[in-house]
Amino acid sequence: MNEPAFLRACRGESVGHVPVWFMRQAGRSLPEYRALRGAGSILDAIGDPSLAAEITMQPVRRYGVDAAILFSDIVVPLHAIGFGVDVVPGRGPVVARPFKGLADLERLRDLAESDITHVTDAVDLVIKELSASDTPLIGFAGAPFTVASYLVEGAPTRDFAVIKSLMHADPALFDQLLDRLVSITVTFLRAQVAHGARALQLFDSWAGALTRDEYRRFALEATQRVLDGVADLKVPTILFGVGTGELLDLMASAGSSVMGIDWHVDIDEGRRRVGDRPVQGNLDPARCLGGVELGVEAAREVLARAGSGAGHIFNLGHGVLPSTDPVVLEAVVRTVHDEGRAGVR
Amino acid sequence: MNEPAFLRACRGESVGHVPVWFMRQAGRSLPEYRALRGAGSILDAIGDPSLAAEITMQPVRRYGVDAAILFSDIVVPLHAIGFGVDVVPGRGPVVARPFKGLADLERLRDLAESDITHVTDAVDLVIKELSASDTPLIGFAGAPFTVASYLVEGAPTRDFAVIKSLMHADPALFDQLLDRLVSITVTFLRAQVAHGARALQLFDSWAGALTRDEYRRFALEATQRVLDGVADLKVPTILFGVGTGELLDLMASAGSSVMGIDWHVDIDEGRRRVGDRPVQGNLDPARCLGGVELGVEAAREVLARAGSGAGHIFNLGHGVLPSTDPVVLEAVVRTVHDEGRAGVR
Repeated sequence: MNEPAFLRACRGESVGHVPVWFMRQAGRSLPEYRALRGAGSILDAIGDPSLAAEITMQPVRRYGVDAAILFSDIVVPLHAIGFGVDVVPGRGPVVARPFKGLADLERLRDLAESDITHVTDAVDLVIKELSASDTPLIGFAGAPFTVASYLVEGAPTRDFAVIKSLMHADPALFDQLLDRLVSITVTFLRAQVAHGARALQLFDSWAGALTRDEYRRFALEATQRVLDGVADLKVPTILFGVGTGELLDLMASAGSSVMGIDWHVDIDEGRRRVGDRPVQGNLDPARCLGGVELGVEAAREVLARAGSGAGHIFNLGHGVLPSTDPVVLEAVVRTVHDEGRAGVR
Repeated sequence: MNEPAFLRACRGESVGHVPVWFMRQAGRSLPEYRALRGAGSILDAIGDPSLAAEITMQPVRRYGVDAAILFSDIVVPLHAIGFGVDVVPGRGPVVARPFKGLADLERLRDLAESDITHVTDAVDLVIKELSASDTPLIGFAGAPFTVASYLVEGAPTRDFAVIKSLMHADPALFDQLLDRLVSITVTFLRAQVAHGARALQLFDSWAGALTRDEYRRFALEATQRVLDGVADLKVPTILFGVGTGELLDLMASAGSSVMGIDWHVDIDEGRRRVGDRPVQGNLDPARCLGGVELGVEAAREVLARAGSGAGHIFNLGHGVLPSTDPVVLEAVVRTVHDEGRAGVR
C-alpha cells in the first residue's frame, strides 16, 4: 500500500479509501482561481508555467483530492504548433482557418518537446509541490476525434455537421488527419509523463456525437494508437467522453486502464458495459448546485451504485460547473473518503 | 389497407411502403417557409391560423411525406394561459418569471378550448387541405417534464441545474407542477384530435437530461397520465426525446403506441429496448448536410438496420437542421418509398 490510492484504484488494486478528484477541479468555480486569473485568455494563463502550476495546486489544497490534474486545455498542442487556435471566453475553442482539405495537413506538423516547454515547466513545478503529499499528477490530452472536431468545425457545435460531412465524404483524408493527431497527441502525453505525470486521461469529449458505426470507423483506431503509444510508460490511462453510453464497450476496447463513465449511465451499468475494469465517475455536476445536503445525497447514490466489486475512482460525470459552490465539493470529498471505505475490495 | 401507411405502421400493421415524415419538416430549412414567415416571433405565426396551416402544408407538398405535423411549439399552451413565455429567435423559449415555488402554481391555470382557438382553427384548415390525399395530421405537445424544464429554468440550458435542484429539494412541489402540466397537456392534445388530428406525438425533448432514477421519479408517471388521458381517443401516440438511450425501456413503459428513437441509438438496438413495438426514426440530421449522395447512403443504413421485423416509421433522429438543403430530404423520401418496401412485413 505504498502507492497513492488513486493509482492503486486505477490498477484495480485494494485501497484504504475510495479516491476522488473532479474533472475541471482547477478553474472557474474557485474564487482563488478567479482572483488569480483575471480576464486574459486561458491560453495565456497556460503559457505561464508558475501560474498554471499554482492553478493546478489550488483544488488539491482546498479539497484534499487524491489527484491533481494539470491546468491545461486540449487545444494546447495545436496552439503550440501554430495551427491558429484560440479559446474565446464564454465560447470555447475557435480556429482561424478550419481544416478543410489535403493542403491543411501540412499545417499539422509534428509536435516537438521544445514547443511545449511551458507545459513541461508547469509539470516540473507541480511535481515539486506535490512531492510532500505524494499526490499524483494526471496529465491529459484530447483524443484524436475530439481534437479533429475542433479543427474541422472551427468553433463549438451541437450538430457536428461539418466534420460528419467531411469524414463520410472523404474517409481517406479524415484518416490522414487522425494520423497527424495521433502523432501529436502521443508526443504531448509522453512529455507530461517524462516530467512526472503519473497517470494520463484522454478526453474524447465529443465521441458521443458519433453513432457506433461512426465511432468504429472514425475514432476507435486512432484512440487505440494513442494508448498504444504510451503503453510502455506503464502509467494508468483513463478514457472519458460525454454522452457515450452507446459506445462504452467500443471505447473500452481501445484499451485504457480505466473507463470514465458520464452521469447519464448508472455506474454499475457502465461498469458492466466496459467489462468490469476500473471505472471513474459519475456524479451529475448539476446535483452539486443545490447546496451541501443535496450534493452529499447525490454522492451517496453514486457510492452505493459503485458498490464494492472493483476499482472505483470517484469523480463527476462531467466537468465541475462554473457556478458550483466549492463548499459542496469539499463535503463530497469528505463523504467519499469517510463513507466510500465500505466500497473497497 | 384503406388507412394511410403512416397510421397502419403506427399500429404495427402491414403497409405497402415504409412511411416517412421529418421532425421539424415545417420550418427554417424551407425557402418557401422563410419567404412566408418574415422576421416576426414564431408565436405570432402560430397565432395566425391560415399562416400556420400553410406552413404545415408546405413540406407535405414538397416532400410527399406520409404525415403532416402541425406547425406549433411546445410552449403554445403555456403562452395561451398567459404564463409569460416567449420564443426568442436564435435562443429559444424564455420565461419572464420562471417557476420558483408554490405561489407560481396559481399561474398555471387549466387550459380551456377557448384559449387555443388559433390552434384548432389551424387544425381545421389543415384537415380540409389534407382530405384529398388522405394524409394524416399529427398533433403534438411537450411532455410534462420537458415543459416543466422550460418553466423552471426560464431559458434554454445545457445543465438543467435549476430544475434538478428544485426537484430534488422539493419533490412534492415538483409533483404539483407536473400535475398542473398533465392537465394542460391532455386538454391541448384532446383539442387537436377533436378537430381532426389522427395521431399524437409527445415530445419529451429533454428527458435525456435525467438519470434513470430521476426519470422514474420525476417524469414517467406524468407522461403515463398524459397518454392515459388520450387513450380513449384511439389515435396512435408517439413518444420521443433526444439522448434517451439509457431511458428507452422506461419511456416505453409509459405506454405510447410508437417509440421515437434518436440517432445515437442504432434503431435495431432501440427496438430491442422498447420491447418490439413500432419505432420511429432515426437518421442523423447532420448526415443530410453533405449533399444528396451522402444523405441517401445514410438513409439506406437506417432502412437496413430497421429491417423487416416490425413497424417502422422512417424519420430523422432529431429535428431537421436549419441549413438542410430540401433537395436532400426529397431524395431521402424517394429512397424510403422506393427501397423501404423490402422492409415491410
